[in-house]
Amino acid sequence: MNAPEIERLIQLVGRLPGLGPRSARRIVLRLLSDKEQRLIPLIQAMADAATNVQNCRICGTLDGTDPCAICADPTREPIICVVESVADLWALERSGLFRGRYHVLGGLLSPIAGRGPDQLRIAPLLARLADAPEIILALPSTVEGQASAHYLAERLKPVGVRVTRLAQGVPVGGAIDILDDGTLALALSARREA
Amino acid sequence: MNAPEIERLIQLVGRLPGLGPRSARRIVLRLLSDKEQRLIPLIQAMADAATNVQNCRICGTLDGTDPCAICADPTREPIICVVESVADLWALERSGLFRGRYHVLGGLLSPIAGRGPDQLRIAPLLARLADAPEIILALPSTVEGQASAHYLAERLKPVGVRVTRLAQGVPVGGAIDILDDGTLALALSARREA
Repeated sequence: MNAPEIERLIQLVGRLPGLGPRSARRIVLRLLSDKEQRLIPLIQAMADAATNVQNCRICGTLDGTDPCAICADPTREPIICVVESVADLWALERSGLFRGRYHVLGGLLSPIAGRGPDQLRIAPLLARLADAPEIILALPSTVEGQASAHYLAERLKPVGVRVTRLAQGVPVGGAIDILDDGTLALALSARREA
Repeated sequence: MNAPEIERLIQLVGRLPGLGPRSARRIVLRLLSDKEQRLIPLIQAMADAATNVQNCRICGTLDGTDPCAICADPTREPIICVVESVADLWALERSGLFRGRYHVLGGLLSPIAGRGPDQLRIAPLLARLADAPEIILALPSTVEGQASAHYLAERLKPVGVRVTRLAQGVPVGGAIDILDDGTLALALSARREA
């Protein structure tokens, strides 16, 4: 019923994560209702990003330069934090808690999804261990995340580098009565002196 | 911390309706992670829409042609359905229940927002009454919607055209016990023979 240009745009927007046909229609209407202030600047920003943003050849994150600003920063500590995705890297950077370097795996090991070690950026990680005093495995507390961490630890330890993982347990502000059994078991077995 | 190209894109995407910084980061990451399959086609679709989509000079909707496909369709009945927005027009078209024509007001009367009759597409509506046997006011059941409907009815009736409104009452599938008092009062006073 709509113009093909509108239907195509709704379709593409509706495929973005977290969006569906309904929210896509709303977004497309807003964009088309205010071309000069919304649609044109967005097209321009997307075109700029398409042209200038690329994966860092060292750590794999997305940035406007290659190597990325973090890899190129000499004041960053040589400790390397291994993350699943750029999203996780961004989350750690927003926290401001970590001043080392990163390595983006680009996924997790998953036999079901057919993702083995060769599909992840593991070789580039092994290639940059020389200056790293420690590798922090900041992978999700899921089956795939923990399997990937286990695999990486087995690969990295023989090289002689220190390998650590994020602590697991009760999240800050987390109530005990709504905690899942897995987390509760972990928090109990890893209990510390008060 | 991120490249300015990425931050700008997150900022613009985060201003779209229903999105915030968190969902914008997720969307931008997905776009940048798959430029060829996602970002470039979206830029192209947006550019096409920016070039080709415009407001219909007659009814005010958005379409790839002017007059729009509905206004240009000789098989459409001459009855005119007045809606607040293009979104409402799309909703009525999706229902497939109405085979007449439309008129998009472009908003509702709102003294608080400083929107008077001159800010709405009322003059173009008055200009196209000649062939219309009836005007259906399909405006929202809000204070502003009903005030606008009342104003329009007062303006249209002296012209001699039949003016109707959508029925109000219990929505289909609506439970009585969670209905607001306003709807309940309306449904009671407008009750019909069973």
